[in-house]
Amino acid sequence: MAEPKQERAVKTREAILFAAAEVFDECGYSGASISKIMQRADVTQGGMYFHFKSKRGLALAVLEHQQEFVHFPDGGAGLQRLVDLTFFIAHELQTNVLFRASVRLAVEQGDFGVQDDTAYQEWVEQLYTHLCEARELGQLLPEVDERECANVLVGAYSGTQVFSNIASGRVDLADRLVSMWRYVLPGIATPSALAGVAMPKGTRRLAA
Amino acid sequence: MAEPKQERAVKTREAILFAAAEVFDECGYSGASISKIMQRADVTQGGMYFHFKSKRGLALAVLEHQQEFVHFPDGGAGLQRLVDLTFFIAHELQTNVLFRASVRLAVEQGDFGVQDDTAYQEWVEQLYTHLCEARELGQLLPEVDERECANVLVGAYSGTQVFSNIASGRVDLADRLVSMWRYVLPGIATPSALAGVAMPKGTRRLAA
Repeated sequence: MAEPKQERAVKTREAILFAAAEVFDECGYSGASISKIMQRADVTQGGMYFHFKSKRGLALAVLEHQQEFVHFPDGGAGLQRLVDLTFFIAHELQTNVLFRASVRLAVEQGDFGVQDDTAYQEWVEQLYTHLCEARELGQLLPEVDERECANVLVGAYSGTQVFSNIASGRVDLADRLVSMWRYVLPGIATPSALAGVAMPKGTRRLAA
Repeated sequence: MAEPKQERAVKTREAILFAAAEVFDECGYSGASISKIMQRADVTQGGMYFHFKSKRGLALAVLEHQQEFVHFPDGGAGLQRLVDLTFFIAHELQTNVLFRASVRLAVEQGDFGVQDDTAYQEWVEQLYTHLCEARELGQLLPEVDERECANVLVGAYSGTQVFSNIASGRVDLADRLVSMWRYVLPGIATPSALAGVAMPKGTRRLAA
């Protein structure tokens, strides 16, 4: 009897997290309520409080598991993989509500009194790994510091997606990324590596 | 009798806006309340409702006047002026509560159901002007599109300040800007212009 109960608990927790993500995504932190989330997840008050005690706890759970919500498929290496990752994330922001809500809460976390850069630092680590691979492949300019550069890229990317969200509901995010790379890659890549990096099919620069 | 009344109304409005900025800066939109702002501004309910009818109206007033809250002193030209502006804004974010609250509300605006990119577009316009001056001065690479580049820089800057705020309460913002320019300027400036651009005294790259 223990296993089915545990299994049910895991499923309930997942249903609550997904419902919380949907509500945070639609209403923001201040517009969300635990009762709205209970209703959406179709769980009882007992079921909710077994897993989460507060709206803040729910927001932290959605915020903290950002990296688990996306699964970047294999393929590419070095700078190409770095560039591909940014477009993959752009697509996830448009289609994956758990990830989108997590990113929103990471940006708006000041609104619920949190100051936690874990989500940002995890992206720094991931970009750092790709930059180290690019270094191994001889793709980086000598003056590039892989960790510093990863920090710059995470900052630049975060703001690009916030601006795109406010300007167009992220419809123009891929175009903004093409434009971002146009000005950033020359400071990172050797001329031959730069010539070899391709933007995804169907993308184009931000319309002037 | 008409003029003193008007003068008093202007002063009351300013006091309310300043108090609202302080409260939004400290508590975020959802943590702020009109009664908290009234108390901080030391105005009566009548005085408040003469100027602002709702918390949302107050937030929009703080958000919409972002450019009026900062006064960038004259000096420098072209790329140097562009770079100087980014460090000036960093300093204002640390010391100017009206501006800081306005930027916070611009980033977290989703939380109160607004989607207004005016504040972003005004920065695009200002950066565009400096880039056009840089073009006149022969400082830009031929492939730079001034408007596209201004959009990229506003996005990159926004995210850099959000990341810095969460990572260090903006203590490391100037360092993050030095690092940002290190990777972005080579894609914008001619080699000779690049060599001539100076970072402010006392700033250094983000520590690796």
